[in-house]
Amino acid sequence: MSAVLTVADLAAKARTASRRLALLSRADKDAALLAIADALDAASADVVAANAQDIERGRASGMVEGLVDRLTLTPERVAAVADAVRDIAALPDPVGEVVRGSTLANGLQIRQVRVPMGVVGMIYEARPNVTVDAAALGLKSGNAVILRGGSAAESTNRTLVTVMRDALTAQGLPADAIGLLDGGRDAVRALLTARGQVDLIIPRGGAGLIQTVVTESTVPVIETGVGNCHVYVDAAADLDKALAITLNAKTHRPSVCNAAESLLVHASLTQEFLPKVLAELSGAGVVLHTDPAAGSAAEAAGIPHVPATDEDWDTEYLALEIAVAVVPDLDGALDHIRAHSSGHTEAIVTEDRAAARRFTTEIDAAAVMVNASTRFTDGGEFGFGAEIGISTQKLHARGPMALPELTTTKWIVEGDGQIR
Amino acid sequence: MSAVLTVADLAAKARTASRRLALLSRADKDAALLAIADALDAASADVVAANAQDIERGRASGMVEGLVDRLTLTPERVAAVADAVRDIAALPDPVGEVVRGSTLANGLQIRQVRVPMGVVGMIYEARPNVTVDAAALGLKSGNAVILRGGSAAESTNRTLVTVMRDALTAQGLPADAIGLLDGGRDAVRALLTARGQVDLIIPRGGAGLIQTVVTESTVPVIETGVGNCHVYVDAAADLDKALAITLNAKTHRPSVCNAAESLLVHASLTQEFLPKVLAELSGAGVVLHTDPAAGSAAEAAGIPHVPATDEDWDTEYLALEIAVAVVPDLDGALDHIRAHSSGHTEAIVTEDRAAARRFTTEIDAAAVMVNASTRFTDGGEFGFGAEIGISTQKLHARGPMALPELTTTKWIVEGDGQIR
Repeated sequence: MSAVLTVADLAAKARTASRRLALLSRADKDAALLAIADALDAASADVVAANAQDIERGRASGMVEGLVDRLTLTPERVAAVADAVRDIAALPDPVGEVVRGSTLANGLQIRQVRVPMGVVGMIYEARPNVTVDAAALGLKSGNAVILRGGSAAESTNRTLVTVMRDALTAQGLPADAIGLLDGGRDAVRALLTARGQVDLIIPRGGAGLIQTVVTESTVPVIETGVGNCHVYVDAAADLDKALAITLNAKTHRPSVCNAAESLLVHASLTQEFLPKVLAELSGAGVVLHTDPAAGSAAEAAGIPHVPATDEDWDTEYLALEIAVAVVPDLDGALDHIRAHSSGHTEAIVTEDRAAARRFTTEIDAAAVMVNASTRFTDGGEFGFGAEIGISTQKLHARGPMALPELTTTKWIVEGDGQIR
Repeated sequence: MSAVLTVADLAAKARTASRRLALLSRADKDAALLAIADALDAASADVVAANAQDIERGRASGMVEGLVDRLTLTPERVAAVADAVRDIAALPDPVGEVVRGSTLANGLQIRQVRVPMGVVGMIYEARPNVTVDAAALGLKSGNAVILRGGSAAESTNRTLVTVMRDALTAQGLPADAIGLLDGGRDAVRALLTARGQVDLIIPRGGAGLIQTVVTESTVPVIETGVGNCHVYVDAAADLDKALAITLNAKTHRPSVCNAAESLLVHASLTQEFLPKVLAELSGAGVVLHTDPAAGSAAEAAGIPHVPATDEDWDTEYLALEIAVAVVPDLDGALDHIRAHSSGHTEAIVTEDRAAARRFTTEIDAAAVMVNASTRFTDGGEFGFGAEIGISTQKLHARGPMALPELTTTKWIVEGDGQIR
C-alpha cells in the first residue's frame, strides 16, 4: 500500500514537472544538460565512493567479475558518462518538428507536431550509466523520467540522481523531472499499472525482466533488446566476407543483443567453407552447438563441438557460444529464421541479388542486413547520436530508438470558424 | 480450452496468410479489393437477409431503435459499404514507403521501410460496416485481420466475412487473410493474450470495451475513441464563430467521439454570450448540466437546466446533453481541461494569438483546435481517405488512424562486407 502511494506520488510529481519540460526551449534544455554534465564531473569522487559501496556489497554476495565490471564506475567512466550528456545536448531537439501538414479544402490548416510523451518509466539492470543516459534523453525530449535501476547499483544510482536533481534545481527547473523509484517488487508493480499517470515504460535487460514487464504492465510498453540474431551464409556468398561477418557478429562483443547467436550455412558450403568458419570460431574461443550436418563437418576436421539441443536454436547465449545448422537452401534458412527469430536482426551473406531481395523482403525483423555484421543495429552506428534501447516490437518504434522515439505527436488545427 | 485452441488455430492461419499478403503488389491487392466490392454487391440480398435475422433477434430482445438503425443494412447501405472498399483500393499503398534512409560513413546503405504489422485483431461493437472496412484496410496494408464484431450483428458479420473470403479464394489469395472470431468471452480473452501470434489489437467501442481490452491484453493495443471533448470560449472570441462552433460541435452528430461534451465560457462572457449560447443549445434540444455561474445565467434567462454533478465533467454523453462551466480565465480553462480531458480533441475559440498559442502548446490531446469545430478530428476530414479509428493514446498513433498506422517499419541495411 505504501509502495502504491509512493509511486502515485512520484508519478504525480513527474507529471507536474513534465508540463514545465514540455514548454522549455531547446536552449533551456541544453543549458540544463550541460549543467548536469558539469555537476557529474564535479561530483565524480562522490559517485565513485557510492559505487565502491555497491561493488563491495556485490562482491560480498558473490557477484561474478563480469557483472562487477559492468557495475564499476571509475573517475574516467564518470567523465565519459558526463561527456555523453554533452553529446545529447548537441543533438537536435525532436520536440516541435512538424511531421506533416496541409491546408484542407475548407481552409483549415492542420499540422502534426512532435510533442513529448510526458512521463516515461525506465526499468533496467546493472549498468549505472543508463541512469544518466535515460535522464538526459528524457530531458532533451521534454519528458519527465521515473528510473528503476538494478538493486546492485542502488547507492550509485541514488547519488547520480541526487546530483542531477540538484543541477536541475540550480537551473530553476523542477527536480522531479528525474525521479528514482525505491521499494521492492510492489513498487515496480505499482509503476507498471500506473496507467494514465505514466505514459510509457521501457524495460531494458534480460528476457525475464522484459517478459515480466510486458505481462504485468497496463501502461504501454516498448519491448527491447532480446536478440536471437542469425547469420545465413548463402550458396552465392563471397566467402571471405562471410567469414569476416560471422566472426565479427559473434565475437566482437558477445554480451550484447545484436551479437549473432546462430549461424546457418547453405548445404553447398559444407566441404570447404563450413570447416573453415567452424575452425576460426573455435579458435576464437567460441563453443559450437552443431546440428548433425555441421557436427559431421566439425568432427571430420577435428574441431571441438557439442550437439545442439532444441533449446539452442532459441537461446540468446550473450557469450562465446553459437548454434550452427546446415540448411538445404534459402527457403530452409527463411523457415529456420521464421521459427526462431526474436525479431531483432537477421543477416544474409550473398552476392545473389534475388536471394538478397527475398531475404530482406520476407524476413520479419527490426533490421535485416545484407553483407554486413549484425553488430550494426545500433543507434550510434545508424547515426542517431544516442540510443535508449533497441525495440523488438512493431508498435511505435522498431529497431534502435533515439530521441524522436521518445516523443508522440499532436494535431494542431487552425481555422477561422469552420463547422461541419 | 476449445476457445483457446480455436484462437490459436485462427491466429496461425492468419499468420500464414499474412506472409502471402506482405509480398503482394499494390496491383494484386487492389484487384482483390475490387473483387470483394463486386462480390458484396452481388451478395447484397444475402447480406440483407442475414441482417434481417439480426434485427429480428435484436427487436425481440428489446434493442432500442437507435441501435437497430446502426445495425440495419439496406441494399443502399450494402452498396455504400462496397463503394467504400473501392475507395480504399484507390488509396496509395503504404507498404514499401521509405520513411528515411542514408549512407553511413562506412558505406552501409540503410533505409527504414514501411511493412505490414502482420496479424491485426479488431474488436468492435454494433455497426456491421466496420467488418468490411477493417478487412479492406487490413488487406490494403498487407495485414491479415481477425475480426470480433458485436454479437448483435452475428449473422450479418458471418455472411459478410464469407462473401469476402470467397472473393479472396476466387482471386487465388488466402481466405485466412480475413478471419472471424466466434465464441464467448473466453475466445476474446484468448485473442487478447495471443502475444507473438497477434501483432496488434484495436478495440473500437464504448469505454467499457476499451477498458477491458487495455487491462486484459498482453498483445500491444491501440486505444481508440473515448472523447470527452471541450469547447472553450475565450474572452477574445469572435462570438458568432463561438456560437456556430459550439452548436456544431454538440449537435451535428452527438453520438460520435468527436462531439463536444463540455462547454467552458470565460467569466467576461456571462452577461451576453452565455445566455445566448445556452438558449440556442436548449432550443436545439440539448440538456444543460450547469455549474453555479452558468446555472444563474440560465435561471435569469428562463432556460431549462440541471445542476452539474462531479460526474458530469467526466461524462461522454454521446447524446444531446452538455456540461457547462464558467471559468475565470484561460488558466482556469486549461486547468479544467487537464483535469477532465480524455486526450481526444479540445477546442478554443479566440482571436487572441497569445491565448491560441498557449492553448495549442499546453493542452495534451490528440487534436487541438483553434476556431474550428471538434467534429473535424476525423480521418476523412483530414484527407486520409479512410479511418480505422481515432487513437487517444500516445504510442504509435495519435488521432485519426488510416493505412500508414496499420504498418510498422523495418530497417534494411545493405553492405559489401562491413564489420565493426
